[in-house]
Amino acid sequence: MIQVVKCGGQVLDDAALLEAFCRDFAALEGPKVLVHGGGTLAGRFQKALGIEPVRYEGRRVTDDATLQVVTMVYAGWCNKQLVALLQAHGCDAIGLSGCDGSVITAAKRPPRALSDGQTVDFGWVGEVTAASVRIALLHEFLDKGLTPVLSAINHDGAGHLLNTNADTVAASIAAALGANLTTCFEQPGVLMDKDDPSSVIPVIDRAAYASLKARGVVADGMIPKLDEAFEALEKGAASVRICHSSALLGASGTYLKR
Amino acid sequence: MIQVVKCGGQVLDDAALLEAFCRDFAALEGPKVLVHGGGTLAGRFQKALGIEPVRYEGRRVTDDATLQVVTMVYAGWCNKQLVALLQAHGCDAIGLSGCDGSVITAAKRPPRALSDGQTVDFGWVGEVTAASVRIALLHEFLDKGLTPVLSAINHDGAGHLLNTNADTVAASIAAALGANLTTCFEQPGVLMDKDDPSSVIPVIDRAAYASLKARGVVADGMIPKLDEAFEALEKGAASVRICHSSALLGASGTYLKR
Repeated sequence: MIQVVKCGGQVLDDAALLEAFCRDFAALEGPKVLVHGGGTLAGRFQKALGIEPVRYEGRRVTDDATLQVVTMVYAGWCNKQLVALLQAHGCDAIGLSGCDGSVITAAKRPPRALSDGQTVDFGWVGEVTAASVRIALLHEFLDKGLTPVLSAINHDGAGHLLNTNADTVAASIAAALGANLTTCFEQPGVLMDKDDPSSVIPVIDRAAYASLKARGVVADGMIPKLDEAFEALEKGAASVRICHSSALLGASGTYLKR
Repeated sequence: MIQVVKCGGQVLDDAALLEAFCRDFAALEGPKVLVHGGGTLAGRFQKALGIEPVRYEGRRVTDDATLQVVTMVYAGWCNKQLVALLQAHGCDAIGLSGCDGSVITAAKRPPRALSDGQTVDFGWVGEVTAASVRIALLHEFLDKGLTPVLSAINHDGAGHLLNTNADTVAASIAAALGANLTTCFEQPGVLMDKDDPSSVIPVIDRAAYASLKARGVVADGMIPKLDEAFEALEKGAASVRICHSSALLGASGTYLKR
């Protein structure tokens, strides 16, 4: 069974966490794929370069200058640093962005109408689905013992790079490969009480998810993360676990069920 | 016969030149590898971020902050932009830095004594030779119809990224693969008179090179470029041509002979 692991930005922002995560990921047996976010580094570079982030209803607009920064940070520094560390731990990692071997082709997000009726073009932002993935090439790399490490920078096939969501990329790859998906983040799982790390909910199905959302237990950034994870399960992923980045080699965390 | 092409930074600094170069490179028949420099973008970002370049005897010191910038610019923006454009022109390009599949492992340059007796550590700078190249993996990619596009960011195999020279990377790969090497830059070849683009020297052998250097016809940045090119020829490259980036599909330029 192929393991698809998503590691969040907080791992990339902390040298000790990054080192421990790379050691654990390298030790994970069998064929595997890593998908990573970008952490807070892109924001820091934008600020240092005087690029003012533009947002509409919480969503960031990716203009030319922003695309350049996120490509540099995610596809450049984060991706190559992860790959160099994994190689040092004996994992034959190969860093890829979607344009590489056209492994993921995204569709540019069309301009959207906001709640106030205004239409906004979010710029160089792409949408990814399981159909976006060049599955045969990933299988060829895995069969050769290589471990693909993917940033969420993809392309449209017409010469343009597109910024996409790393959770969506991980979910799409897990669905396309029929793999186990493990989403690592800064909490030990989905919590009943967000201030109590011991309150991990062991299993969530669609009905429980609806109820947790209605009661406000699952809120904010957890909603798109769980939406993507349920979508992965429905589109073909074998299993989904959400856990802390230090729990990769264990079995703890929250499991999703159809 | 495999074609190894080195494209210089000036191509990456000019959108029209870049587009034309990618179209031509995509049209080049047979198995091929592209190695690229970084242009002036890294310097612009260093300046914008307030990083003061440190040089000793003309050689740049790569400290932590500089390594981060060159990795972002070369392995991130330049590499992915080239790959996305090549894909749009029908070339199944795959962007790689040396850490990816450990395709090039470099050795960190040891501290060097300067002419004034001072010893300087140049930081995260690596040396590459034909022995650094994982030839089997490049052949597997080429056999599959993939076109490797390499930045000059490599690694030491122990978790550290290293900044290396793109001319040396191209020469080392051409030597390792027994390939034809084409080095593209901003002149139509090696010139007898640097102000007269029609004065291209058609063929240079080792004896002619020594004489051209002694007479000052070949000077400055052309010396390391030609040193690398002759080294490639001696270590196994099938041929070496130096030409303008717009002459890739032609046969013009300067040829080196053993």
